[in-house]
Amino acid sequence: MASSAAVTVRAPVLHAPAQDHLQFLPDALIEVGADGRIERVAAAETADLTRPTTVLPRGRVLVPGFVDLHVHAPQWPQLGTALDVPLERWLQEYTFPLEASYRDEAFAARVWDELVPGLLAEGTTTAVYYATVHRAATRSLAEACVRHGQRAFVGRVAMDHPDATPPDYRDASAAAGIEASAASIEDVRTVDAGRGLVRPVITPRFAPACTDALLSGLGDLAAATGALVQTHCSESDWHHGYAIERFGRRDLEALAEFGLVRPHTVLAHATKLPDEDLDAVARSGACIAHCPLSNVSFGNGVFPARRALARGVRVGLGTDIAGGAHSSVLRNAAMALDVSRLLDDGVHGAPGERGGVAGSRLDATTAFWLATRGGAEAVGLDVGCFEPGRPFDAVALDLTSLPTPTVDRDHADLDAELLAERIVRLAGARNVETVWVAGRCVRSAGSSVPSGR
Amino acid sequence: MASSAAVTVRAPVLHAPAQDHLQFLPDALIEVGADGRIERVAAAETADLTRPTTVLPRGRVLVPGFVDLHVHAPQWPQLGTALDVPLERWLQEYTFPLEASYRDEAFAARVWDELVPGLLAEGTTTAVYYATVHRAATRSLAEACVRHGQRAFVGRVAMDHPDATPPDYRDASAAAGIEASAASIEDVRTVDAGRGLVRPVITPRFAPACTDALLSGLGDLAAATGALVQTHCSESDWHHGYAIERFGRRDLEALAEFGLVRPHTVLAHATKLPDEDLDAVARSGACIAHCPLSNVSFGNGVFPARRALARGVRVGLGTDIAGGAHSSVLRNAAMALDVSRLLDDGVHGAPGERGGVAGSRLDATTAFWLATRGGAEAVGLDVGCFEPGRPFDAVALDLTSLPTPTVDRDHADLDAELLAERIVRLAGARNVETVWVAGRCVRSAGSSVPSGR
Repeated sequence: MASSAAVTVRAPVLHAPAQDHLQFLPDALIEVGADGRIERVAAAETADLTRPTTVLPRGRVLVPGFVDLHVHAPQWPQLGTALDVPLERWLQEYTFPLEASYRDEAFAARVWDELVPGLLAEGTTTAVYYATVHRAATRSLAEACVRHGQRAFVGRVAMDHPDATPPDYRDASAAAGIEASAASIEDVRTVDAGRGLVRPVITPRFAPACTDALLSGLGDLAAATGALVQTHCSESDWHHGYAIERFGRRDLEALAEFGLVRPHTVLAHATKLPDEDLDAVARSGACIAHCPLSNVSFGNGVFPARRALARGVRVGLGTDIAGGAHSSVLRNAAMALDVSRLLDDGVHGAPGERGGVAGSRLDATTAFWLATRGGAEAVGLDVGCFEPGRPFDAVALDLTSLPTPTVDRDHADLDAELLAERIVRLAGARNVETVWVAGRCVRSAGSSVPSGR
Repeated sequence: MASSAAVTVRAPVLHAPAQDHLQFLPDALIEVGADGRIERVAAAETADLTRPTTVLPRGRVLVPGFVDLHVHAPQWPQLGTALDVPLERWLQEYTFPLEASYRDEAFAARVWDELVPGLLAEGTTTAVYYATVHRAATRSLAEACVRHGQRAFVGRVAMDHPDATPPDYRDASAAAGIEASAASIEDVRTVDAGRGLVRPVITPRFAPACTDALLSGLGDLAAATGALVQTHCSESDWHHGYAIERFGRRDLEALAEFGLVRPHTVLAHATKLPDEDLDAVARSGACIAHCPLSNVSFGNGVFPARRALARGVRVGLGTDIAGGAHSSVLRNAAMALDVSRLLDDGVHGAPGERGGVAGSRLDATTAFWLATRGGAEAVGLDVGCFEPGRPFDAVALDLTSLPTPTVDRDHADLDAELLAERIVRLAGARNVETVWVAGRCVRSAGSSVPSGR
């Protein structure tokens, strides 16, 4: 474990230890040990005056760092562009050619050094990354996470199906893909060097891009190594229909048979799952990365997050850079609220005829939890809220640019629910002032703090 | 006309003179006269070296200032909160009590001095404001706009219906409401003092809050004074049904009979208008303030912006602070794109059964135009794009925090459409560096530049 200096932060603190449990401590102390873990959370009057303490200025609120369950790292340069075409065209014409260019290691390193600080600037302390098919680029992404101090899962993308991938950007064979994936797991573990900061993730891109042999081999690799798995699941009408046509069963069932639906497996999107599949996901312990902004462009419908949660499915949020148009987890949290209203009420016509599903609305507390503890729990990390023993992954939000809530009250006077709602609906990178990961300050006052290590 | 120093700005310039016409000038000069109007737009190599020139640093793009057609100024303190209740409860329990407190002039002035710079920080150079029923608070809002240099329409809210408004927050009678509205028009014109910066707007809140006598009297006032009119129109199922029950006709028809649907009248929301009404709006020359973020909470459906534009309706964007959860016009432009996708495709179920209306998608160029020239044209202002004779209302966006688009290219190398899409989807207050209104720099490097006048 890399060492950090012990740190104590004094600030108003907002966190959500559970989906329905928001806690606001108007003047709290969080004491963090040299191992980067929280030792004590207490009221400020119990301060240990012998410890050096960082006191956040007025108008700041300390929240857990945000967890982004679905990021295509190589798509960073195309963020916010060309989202007006169907997924298959978007992949073939824009995305695969860009991803193929990461065979150039210098280019890859340059993008990673923009991407990782860019996400830290959004307050994203944990990211679950798809890298590319290239081992070297994958390894250098892990190195960038260590260098900039971001907690991450980093996955080499496995894809070998000649029908859905270009000749210059795929694994040469299933065996080659499995071997490279296994080697990449070791690469990432080597880069992490026992810090516990960066972990590997087995990454079959999505079933259409993978042969049965590759999917099956990666399922075996997951069982053998215990590494996390991520893939896309029933993202769109096309994707959902594809699986039924190819496998004679739904995408989730096929992935499960290949051994890929394991505890904490990240299933991205999953907009098309019937209740039966949601229940199967819940039983498996896998999770769904809800990507509300991306789903607007590619999802053919709104993911029923409230229904999934009610059925016991682990859910977190994903930006899905760059299928999602924005890099902010908070913006996706706000979008999760907004699209849940449209799912509830429908989009056009008379009440009851608008295509809506009553009872679909998410509340702001759930959205806040999804962005923090919900996402962490989904992938089996112990971050996401402030309790003794957990690593200190946190963001100091400067809320002074937000409207003053009411006369003679400041942000700290709001009740927890209203404060969470304001943060979800209004805050963004503009408000992210300081970021800590595992007790280490990795971003402060608008600039990143790269490690000398 | 208040004097401004002549100014010349050199920068990459992006603007949309028409809905389907985006223009990108990678290295342009805009020369602005002492009257705040553009004298010349030209390629940089034709620079008049005798004029002092502001050269924007690398990574900046100059765009027209954003136009917000629908802002409830007194709701600023509740921005981003309590959006989880139906409109009628939201009004009675949260909004009317807050608005009533603006009888306190000191409180009002304090909020305006936060609101107006807050919107300038979002790049909003023109705002169409609902103030409150109070003449003094309305006048002081106009004063704040002059003080901070924001172009605005400022309207005293008229409302007198005892069934839909609280006793402590309404006009005492229709006659009192009409008289106060007439006086407020004069107040605002006095405050503007011929600058042409701040204009009055006749503001019957919405039909449910107004008696027939008030609506009719305000229609007469509009005809007599030529002042702009704004009101809400068929915002929700409830509002739409209310009009039919009370007037025996749809809301738009009733408003028209009262003389309130005039050229450039701002009809907020209008989510429930049938094509027949959209055609009537087009014929009248009135406009619709599309408030996509607010409509998610209160609109019972998505406003069909593309259909309205195709039928010749003037359309712009509104934040609808605080029924809309965010103060950014750009965020509403992005939301206009996103909800148009859901309107097109629907939210739940199989293709064709999801409640969608195929052909509803907006493109990013239209969204950019709506945020700028579209909004300006809607209310009859000559701002919103860069052409000789038009006032120079502009925003310098610092795009350096956005991902570098592709290897070895910077933002200025993107084609116009991609650049507009990135700005709509990714930019926000964080990127707003300098703001000019009528040639005067009103915000620079994160701080407002209040006038000494």
